[in-house]
Formats: sequence, C-alpha cells, structure tokens
Amino acid sequence: MRRETSAPTMKDVAREAGVALGTVSKVVNGLPVGESYRIRVEDAIHKLNYQVNSYAQGLKANKTYTAALLIPNTINPFFASLAYYINIALMKRHYRMILCSTDFDPLLEQEYVTMAQQNKVDGIIGLTYNPTLIVEENTPFVSIDRSMGPHIPCVACDNFAGGQLAAEKLADLGCRNVAFLRNGSSLDNEPNKRKAGFENGCLSRGISYEMKILDDSAPYEEFEQFLSEHIHNGKLSFDGLFCVTDRLTYLISETLRRLNQRVPEDVQLIGFDGIRSFGDIDYRCSTIVQPVPEIAEMCVELLLQENMRTKPPLVCLPVSYAYGGTTLG
Amino acid sequence: MRRETSAPTMKDVAREAGVALGTVSKVVNGLPVGESYRIRVEDAIHKLNYQVNSYAQGLKANKTYTAALLIPNTINPFFASLAYYINIALMKRHYRMILCSTDFDPLLEQEYVTMAQQNKVDGIIGLTYNPTLIVEENTPFVSIDRSMGPHIPCVACDNFAGGQLAAEKLADLGCRNVAFLRNGSSLDNEPNKRKAGFENGCLSRGISYEMKILDDSAPYEEFEQFLSEHIHNGKLSFDGLFCVTDRLTYLISETLRRLNQRVPEDVQLIGFDGIRSFGDIDYRCSTIVQPVPEIAEMCVELLLQENMRTKPPLVCLPVSYAYGGTTLG
Repeated sequence: MRRETSAPTMKDVAREAGVALGTVSKVVNGLPVGESYRIRVEDAIHKLNYQVNSYAQGLKANKTYTAALLIPNTINPFFASLAYYINIALMKRHYRMILCSTDFDPLLEQEYVTMAQQNKVDGIIGLTYNPTLIVEENTPFVSIDRSMGPHIPCVACDNFAGGQLAAEKLADLGCRNVAFLRNGSSLDNEPNKRKAGFENGCLSRGISYEMKILDDSAPYEEFEQFLSEHIHNGKLSFDGLFCVTDRLTYLISETLRRLNQRVPEDVQLIGFDGIRSFGDIDYRCSTIVQPVPEIAEMCVELLLQENMRTKPPLVCLPVSYAYGGTTLG
Repeated sequence: MRRETSAPTMKDVAREAGVALGTVSKVVNGLPVGESYRIRVEDAIHKLNYQVNSYAQGLKANKTYTAALLIPNTINPFFASLAYYINIALMKRHYRMILCSTDFDPLLEQEYVTMAQQNKVDGIIGLTYNPTLIVEENTPFVSIDRSMGPHIPCVACDNFAGGQLAAEKLADLGCRNVAFLRNGSSLDNEPNKRKAGFENGCLSRGISYEMKILDDSAPYEEFEQFLSEHIHNGKLSFDGLFCVTDRLTYLISETLRRLNQRVPEDVQLIGFDGIRSFGDIDYRCSTIVQPVPEIAEMCVELLLQENMRTKPPLVCLPVSYAYGGTTLG
C-alpha cells in the first residue's frame, strides 16, 4: 500500500519495465542501451510519473542541468531583454537558469565562476566589464560583448558593421557633418568597435566627422559643453549624431532641446541597441538594433555544446537599422 | 602529495582542526556544538579553503539554498525591476535564484511549483495570472499581486490607496471631470482594487467620474472610441484621466495627441507603477509609484521565515506619487 502513495523509485520503474535496475539507471543518465530496452524504460517512467532526483543525479553524473547568467542588472532594458531570451533558450533545453545580478561587483562575479569550476553549475554566460575576473581555460563560460581569452567564446552583435551602418544611414539621409558620441567602459571590448565602423562609414561616404569619447569617470556635462561649443549663430555645426547607446541618445536629445536644436529637423540622431518603450511598443529613437534573441540562442548553444573540438573565439551577429523618430527616415 | 592538489575534504578539515569528523559535519550543517569546537572548525575551513559540496548537503539537510522566481518575462520594465530586487534580496541571504520566465504558460508554472513540492527548490515567489495553478497548502510559496489561498502569503503595493491617491491628486490639480481607464486581467487580483480606491477618492473630493474597463479580449481601439465619443466641439469632456498602468498612460497619451488634445494643458494623466526611462532616468509619466525594493524584500523575508506560526495572508506596502510631465504638478 505504501508504495502506491509515495513517489515511485528507480526500482519501481525497473519492475514495471521488466528490466534490471542498471538499465533504468543508464536510460536516466543518457547512456547507451538497446532501443527496445530504452522504450520500455521510458514507457514505465511515463506511466509511473517517475521523477528523477536531480540532486542524486547531480552527484552521479556530475551534471546539474543548471546554468548561471552573470549580468549587471535587469533594470537596464538591454540587459533585461538579454536575461529574458537567455532564460527562454535555456528552459527550452530543460536547463534551469540561476540569475546573478552582479551590480558590477567583482567578488560576486568571481564567486559564481568558482561555482562553475566546482561543477555546482554546468556553465556560465556572463556579461561583465570586470578586468580582473579570472576564468580558467577549461571553465564552461560564454562571454557576451567582451573577449575573456582564447578559449572562452565571446558572442556579440557585429558592432563594427553597426557603426558603419549608422554612418551610411546618416549620409543617405543627407547629413554632411556628423559626430560620434561615446561614454561607458574604456576596457577593450566589442562595443568599442562601433567607433571604428563609424569612421570607416564616414570615410567611404566622404562626409566629415568628429569624435567625442568620454571615459568612465568623465561627467555627462562634457557632452553638453562639446555641443554648446559647436553652436554658432544659434545653429549646431553637426547635422547628424551617432550616439553609442539608445540611452545616451535619449540624454543627448534632451540636451539638444535645451539648446534649442530640433530633432530631427536640425540634427538627426541614431542610437544603438534597439530599446522599445515598455519593452515592446515603439523604438525610443532611430537605432541600430542588436539581434538579442539570436545572441541569446548562440550563447546557450555554445555553452551546452560539449563535443566541439574548437569553440569559435568570437561570434558576431548581424544588426539592422530601425526608424524611431529621431531621423528623417 | 595528492592531497595538496585536490580539493580538501571534510576529513582534512577534521584533521586540521583536531576534532572528530562528526563535529565538522555538525558545524557545516549549522547544528549546535561547543563554541571552542565551532571556532576551531571554522578556522580550519578558512585555512584549507574547504568548499561545502552543496549537492551532498542538499541531500542531507533537504535544503538547496535556492529559490525560484516565476514571472511572465523580464521585458516589461515593472517585471524586470521586480526580478532585479528579488534577485538582490535573495543573494544577500546567500540564496541562489532560479529565474523562470513563464510567458503566462500554465504548464511551466505548475512544473516549477512541483519542483518546490519535491524540495528541489526551497521555495517559490510567483507573479502569475493563471487561475488553474494549484499550490498546496504546505508549499513554500509567496505570491505577488494575487491571493492564491488562505495559507499562501500575498505581497502587493497598497493598490486601493494608490487609486485613491490618484483621484485626490487630480482633484488637487484642478480636475473636475475625470475617468478611470483599465485593461488587463479580469481575474480577481490586488491591482483591481485601484478602481475602488479611485472611486472612493472621487466621491470624497466630490468630483464626477466615469469608468472604462476593458476585459482581456477587448481591443485597445475601444479606448480610442471611448475618448472620441467624449470630444464635443473639439474639446474632451474629461480634464483628468487615471490609467491603470504607466504603459496604458503612454498609449493613451499617443491617442490624445492624434485627437488634438494637449497633455497636460487640456487633460492631465496619472499612471501606475513608476516606470523610468531606461530603468533609471526620468519617470515616463506622472504616476503612482510601487515600492518595488520593499515588495521584493518582503517576499523574500516571508519565503525564508520558517518559524512563523502564522504567515500574513496579505501584505500591502505604501505607494507614493511622482510627477512625470503628464500633470500640472
């Protein structure tokens, strides 16, 4: 009677299937058995609604079916969107995802990497700007936006192509004097290629350009000062601006309003990321859209792919342009 | 030599501390031992950098130090902010958080509840609008925004007070003819109290009001029609609108622009939630702000509090008003 009400065990499955206990164990752990045995065991598992004890399984197979995502936060809408799509991609593959909002805390980041090295999670997907983070060669780790070493795959959008596309788009829309505005981490990372791509695009289209690059510690006011200095007789000398993120585009458009410059009539703005109002309504500005669902899928594929002799060190995924009101088209 | 390079075991800790193996086990599992023993064991753990095997520990103590968050997605900025603060509150208490973006999938939600019942996670915090979700009485579950039964604590902001505050604020700002616009789930839930609170506020201030409530299946266009029908000689008959979310406020303000009504000069708008541009810049509209960090802390406190004889069935946390450009103040 007792067996009827308590959870079925592996022994119950073996009895139901009419096979040895070792056969059930092999099936549960994904090891090869004869096809007819596998079917009988799976039928019995289904019939008894047998649930694998994942802790016992974790001890045996050294697998946890759990991956961790290190991300600064889920408040920034780009990070929030990455977290969502990576979560969906992992769950589709029957993996659980531990979320670790790091707030850029290097100790916390290192702690989670240690968890992966101790097999407490099967792997880590990380977006980190921590230059001191140590990820050993054989740690299952996929990095977003920043290369962490030759044996750690890095996934990003094609930032160079994105910068180039922004320049070409501004040129196509009639701009002749443009500028690139950047703030954020000065650490060597993929998003830094937006600048080189933009320069390349300006040169190939023969439009003149300036750069205003602020490092981590510089206050936003330096952009205000830069723009003010480029206003002569009430008119900004730039007719197009490429801002490194949609967030910066928003701040710049507020500044331009205070300086009595109309967007997009006087100056056209293109941002980067593809952020939408409330996550899914309209684009906040004209923008280079990052392919977030594709970035998420690629990260998860590379993390869980065990039989690859050589993982690609850098994967760049294609970007696209979207109109969002801050350009003429 | 081998012991030097492989991970230290509990035996190594016992040898280093000069105590019995059982003493180390008690310390690791938080059971009482003499103070001097505890200190010696902790010193040895520290010196050897001994790492507790959390799977073995999970099997023994029936604890996983893991909680799951069920939330529709992290794309919607209100959900994204809840996910962030709950994540921080759990990690502060040395808990890992499994994120489960449900996309309102009832099967996925039930699967995670089953995980909690099988002790694969220590508990669940869930924001779900799934009326069929079965959470048994003794499951460690804390619900956000919707009561799931007498023994499952529910945490929400004070939605009634929020509705009342919106009405009072509109009255204070000079409005005399107002309306409440609501869409979303018609399921019995805490946010539905915004309506009753708003009515109460209008009645106490003696201003006239109308309600336009759309159920799940109604298209947004019904709001457009409702507003169009209330325009006479080019002028909207309402001078104030309370919209059930900031998201709806945004859509309504776009509609009003198409109908040639100026916000806030002709009609003032108040939303609900407290969403900011890019997560942390300015408010998207004048709004009733939900205390998200406090909601997150309360959920985690109630989930992890084991010794409470009676958990509170419903906790309502105070809201506040914030100016965001869609009102006169």
